[in-house]
Amino acid sequence: MSTAKSILTGIKPTGQVHVGNYAGMIRPTLDLMASNPDGENFLFVANYHALNSIGDPDQVRQFTHEIAACFLALGLNLETTSFYRQSDVPEVFELTTVLGSVTPKGLMNRAHAYKAAVDANAQKPNALPDDGVNMGLFTYPILMSADILLFDAHVVPVGKDQIQHVEFARDIAGYFNRRYETEFFTLPAHSVQENLEAVVGLDGRKMSKSYGNTLPLFGDAKARRKAINRIVTDSKQPEEPKDPDTNTVYQLYAALAEPAEIAHLRARFEDGGLGYGEAKRILADKLDELFEAPKARFEEYMSDRGELEAMMAKASERARDKAARKIAALRRVIGT
Amino acid sequence: MSTAKSILTGIKPTGQVHVGNYAGMIRPTLDLMASNPDGENFLFVANYHALNSIGDPDQVRQFTHEIAACFLALGLNLETTSFYRQSDVPEVFELTTVLGSVTPKGLMNRAHAYKAAVDANAQKPNALPDDGVNMGLFTYPILMSADILLFDAHVVPVGKDQIQHVEFARDIAGYFNRRYETEFFTLPAHSVQENLEAVVGLDGRKMSKSYGNTLPLFGDAKARRKAINRIVTDSKQPEEPKDPDTNTVYQLYAALAEPAEIAHLRARFEDGGLGYGEAKRILADKLDELFEAPKARFEEYMSDRGELEAMMAKASERARDKAARKIAALRRVIGT
Repeated sequence: MSTAKSILTGIKPTGQVHVGNYAGMIRPTLDLMASNPDGENFLFVANYHALNSIGDPDQVRQFTHEIAACFLALGLNLETTSFYRQSDVPEVFELTTVLGSVTPKGLMNRAHAYKAAVDANAQKPNALPDDGVNMGLFTYPILMSADILLFDAHVVPVGKDQIQHVEFARDIAGYFNRRYETEFFTLPAHSVQENLEAVVGLDGRKMSKSYGNTLPLFGDAKARRKAINRIVTDSKQPEEPKDPDTNTVYQLYAALAEPAEIAHLRARFEDGGLGYGEAKRILADKLDELFEAPKARFEEYMSDRGELEAMMAKASERARDKAARKIAALRRVIGT
Repeated sequence: MSTAKSILTGIKPTGQVHVGNYAGMIRPTLDLMASNPDGENFLFVANYHALNSIGDPDQVRQFTHEIAACFLALGLNLETTSFYRQSDVPEVFELTTVLGSVTPKGLMNRAHAYKAAVDANAQKPNALPDDGVNMGLFTYPILMSADILLFDAHVVPVGKDQIQHVEFARDIAGYFNRRYETEFFTLPAHSVQENLEAVVGLDGRKMSKSYGNTLPLFGDAKARRKAINRIVTDSKQPEEPKDPDTNTVYQLYAALAEPAEIAHLRARFEDGGLGYGEAKRILADKLDELFEAPKARFEEYMSDRGELEAMMAKASERARDKAARKIAALRRVIGT
């Protein structure tokens, strides 16, 4: 990736941050942005996207604060990254309205999340195709396009299941640019990050709040160790060789440790001689090593919400300036 | 109507203002707002709604300026009415996003304008239901709801074909209030204004830009007189009695003149003795009387766009303040 690129990514505050978020999204994002110090980095908390699923304002606030405190505790560099909430940059909502005027409805009909909801309704007796679908869900690809296009992001790192979001943003930028015979919006490209793939949860399925199989990122160390001890394994004896790739303990470790450490644990499993009890201890130790110091910082940030709010306001200044300039220019293009 | 109500109405800048707009919307709006000096009046130019049909920025700007200059020339009282463009109050776009998160897609599927587009496609061979439908068209009832709810309007004067807009705004306010267990948004009511019905055009159909049968409001007086002289009538002689209600000249006069004048002309038609030539002269004289002085003021406003822009900025101040306070309160309710 060229260092002169602008990179943008967002995270939806819809639950307590867990180890899967860390390994799958937070750490790769921090690494990617650290590798782009001469470009522009934009990282935002998508608190308006969260409204499509969360109606409890205290939860929205709490999860937003947790994400901010979490990134700060893990070393987000506010000098090289603009960090903001959607609400800090309300220009994104004006852009959403403008983009709606150039976006064919047919495009939205093809959005994965909407189609999944329609398909689910098709399985239910007496359900209409749009039952339970709110307009926030139906239109969120436009809001997401506005998130991306407002900052002329070149690169949006995504997991494989999110490629369509960036393709839609690119399509919508094209509709606008053609209508107004301009190159006003940068056409964004996705960058599929291998490590933005799903991380395994305690039960071997994808780690997800909805499966109840998560490890909170900054949870209690003893409780975490207990949860790890309850991971179900096969009944192989310590001395027997074991297949790391069907082994939840190894897979979790592999999502978190350094390459040399992972290779070492892999060899010990394959060679035999490593029991699951010891492996679980190694995994729990690794989590302690990674998260106990950040956890202390996280708790400090969370202990003074006024100060955290002030930090967030400061962190969003560059993004606010840039958004205001882009919208002023947009209005000249569209005549409003 | 109680004088303590707040009344809100908007006008879309999609064409040159014509006599039909004046008689059907502008004059009744001015009268209504003049009758509500102790309440709050909101009148806005819906320049973002216009984007769904106009892609030429110069047209959007020109029509917006013309509407502003027109209302000012016709005596809009900026002391008792907040006058603004949607772009002066970008909070409306943030509210639109929030309202989307509580609005079922099924409601939008039932919107008249969308259904009309789908029905029109059903008549075409090989057309998909959503062909030519952009998301601005599909979602505009939400933007319109935000227009209304942002200012807690009690009353929205509409023509019969626009009742659904206010019903939707009321529904959406209800969805929000129930989700958040609040009475945050005032439930608006429509007020069907008889005089917000269609005004007849030069050819006897509804006066509409799309029919090419309009009289520009501030057009050249001689050209207007010529256009009136070309109105098609029946071949009755001057002395014969005539039916005013099937008579375009009378109907145009009836949309513009005072009640006593209208009754007088009606009697002359019914009694016989009034020829179409004289009736056309009476109509043209009435238009001169009504519009020549405002036209001079209109042209003065239009001659200095910088000054007009400054007036509009000033006129929007109260609405901007109110919108900012409402959105700050909204964010506390939703947690963003």
